[in-house]
Amino acid sequence: MKKFVNNVDNLLAESLSGFASAHQELVDLYLEPTYLTRKNLTLKNGRKNKVAIISGGGSGHEPLHAGYIGFGMLDAACPGHVFTSPTPDQMIAAAEVVHGDKGVLFIVKNYAGDVMNFEMAAEMLPFENATVLTSDDCAVINSTYTTGRRGVAGTMIVEKCVGSLAETGADLQACKTLGDKVNTRTASIGVALTSCTVPAAGRPTFDIADSEIEMGVGIHGEPGRRRETMREADAIVIDCVDAILADFKARNLSVDNEALLLINGFGATPLMELYLIYNTAAKLFSKHGVKISRSLVGNYVTALDMAGASVTLCLLDDEIKQHWDSPVHTAALRWGM
Amino acid sequence: MKKFVNNVDNLLAESLSGFASAHQELVDLYLEPTYLTRKNLTLKNGRKNKVAIISGGGSGHEPLHAGYIGFGMLDAACPGHVFTSPTPDQMIAAAEVVHGDKGVLFIVKNYAGDVMNFEMAAEMLPFENATVLTSDDCAVINSTYTTGRRGVAGTMIVEKCVGSLAETGADLQACKTLGDKVNTRTASIGVALTSCTVPAAGRPTFDIADSEIEMGVGIHGEPGRRRETMREADAIVIDCVDAILADFKARNLSVDNEALLLINGFGATPLMELYLIYNTAAKLFSKHGVKISRSLVGNYVTALDMAGASVTLCLLDDEIKQHWDSPVHTAALRWGM
Repeated sequence: MKKFVNNVDNLLAESLSGFASAHQELVDLYLEPTYLTRKNLTLKNGRKNKVAIISGGGSGHEPLHAGYIGFGMLDAACPGHVFTSPTPDQMIAAAEVVHGDKGVLFIVKNYAGDVMNFEMAAEMLPFENATVLTSDDCAVINSTYTTGRRGVAGTMIVEKCVGSLAETGADLQACKTLGDKVNTRTASIGVALTSCTVPAAGRPTFDIADSEIEMGVGIHGEPGRRRETMREADAIVIDCVDAILADFKARNLSVDNEALLLINGFGATPLMELYLIYNTAAKLFSKHGVKISRSLVGNYVTALDMAGASVTLCLLDDEIKQHWDSPVHTAALRWGM
Repeated sequence: MKKFVNNVDNLLAESLSGFASAHQELVDLYLEPTYLTRKNLTLKNGRKNKVAIISGGGSGHEPLHAGYIGFGMLDAACPGHVFTSPTPDQMIAAAEVVHGDKGVLFIVKNYAGDVMNFEMAAEMLPFENATVLTSDDCAVINSTYTTGRRGVAGTMIVEKCVGSLAETGADLQACKTLGDKVNTRTASIGVALTSCTVPAAGRPTFDIADSEIEMGVGIHGEPGRRRETMREADAIVIDCVDAILADFKARNLSVDNEALLLINGFGATPLMELYLIYNTAAKLFSKHGVKISRSLVGNYVTALDMAGASVTLCLLDDEIKQHWDSPVHTAALRWGM
């Protein structure tokens, strides 16, 4: 394993310190317990008169979640160690700092550890709260760390839209309803060319031959649908697009709609290849009546140093479109300001 | 080699088509010869009454250069095949489309092939033009493809600042002068943990053991200063920071200044590690009197799928700061709009 690391035990704190230093105009970092909040919470863009939006989860998926703290998105993020859930004290401490008078909404990827720890935090919080569980990964129903579908790249779309709505002063129930809707209207599937390597483990999470890919891989290297032979990109993308279309069909959601297409790199895939995937995926979806009107290509929800990518389609409606397009100012997503 | 590729010969065209499709509100793509321009050149943000800023070079460094086309940065980009210079017909065709009445400024990374081809284009252009050669890499004096220092990650800082100045209606000489100044005040050095793999070659550009790093590597995998034993991150970052400080000292440039610190990933390095590098580099520079007041961390000038990173320091003055901070709207860099 070759990584830019000093001591594996300090990796998270050192990396977060760098993040907080590089983006000191945007975030404040607290280390015991560990969480990050928006800067200047008492200012106009701060906590008062809005639902506090908090997310979190294991590290290793950067820029998720801390990279999405800021105006129009998250109020706080609670990072666990690499691929490890944060603990309830982190969520409680973050909520105490960022909550206003409209309650707290947790956005949680559906993994058993995250669900348990966020539930414990929710029960212990002395003020109104609700949770949106993301579960956009249509690759498998249950998985290594999951009962039900996994939450993957679609999570950042949920965070963007809910964060936007919260800025308008909408109430907790409205924010939860929008988050659930975006999650329902989103489907993702990923494919791995290589494994990731968890620094503390020091070796690849799974073995994969030079001639193989993992179709439907999870963002922690969990097994997907099947191990396949490496093929040309278009053949792989066809399978991803078909899986997403089949998922929407099975859930009686018409794709004859405007949509956001997100091609997400897992960490070690060159942008050149991600755009090639976009090219094929956009054409295939269009053939099936999808009107791609919003696009995003890059590393948004990663799996450390995994080579691979995921395809995410989010079916837009006027409300989702409005909240996707609205101004956002975070370290990893910024427009309109 | 496992990559998302259909046919190596079509990789560039397919990837550019995906880029142009994903960012159709920003760019227009032309394929024979190959170049990209800003969208809507006749509009306010288009070509008239400004110097046309054109860059280009081999592909594989995405988002450089096409990702920097748009308001406040480039008017056009001319991509060659992977790690291969574009040819003069590309630059001439691009210039014909984007030039206004104030001439054309080429921003060219200092590699022999690029220099030759841009020079040929410059000689053949029937209107006023000038060139800024970037040479921020302080690792080595001459290199595999280079007489003199290589142009690397600092190139995007030059493109940002010159692009901003051009929007104000400044003349060709002023744009060239600013570009040369930014280049002079910028130093970079990179380190590779792994080689990149050029798709057409199908195998790593160089061999490197699991216990080794290449200190001072170029963005095409060119040899650097020396092959070293892998060490903890801080030890590597210390060497990078020392190299940059020594370079400024040798050129009689005081670092007791405000500065922009760019930690650039080469393509396969997780953001978590890049922020850890930032953390150490920022502290070390501060100890030497540098006032880091601007930061950027991410994949901005890549080397395909190389694991590694570079450290870039740009010494700011009021003019550079103004043009770094000004609004920009491109696929890969966006703020203030």
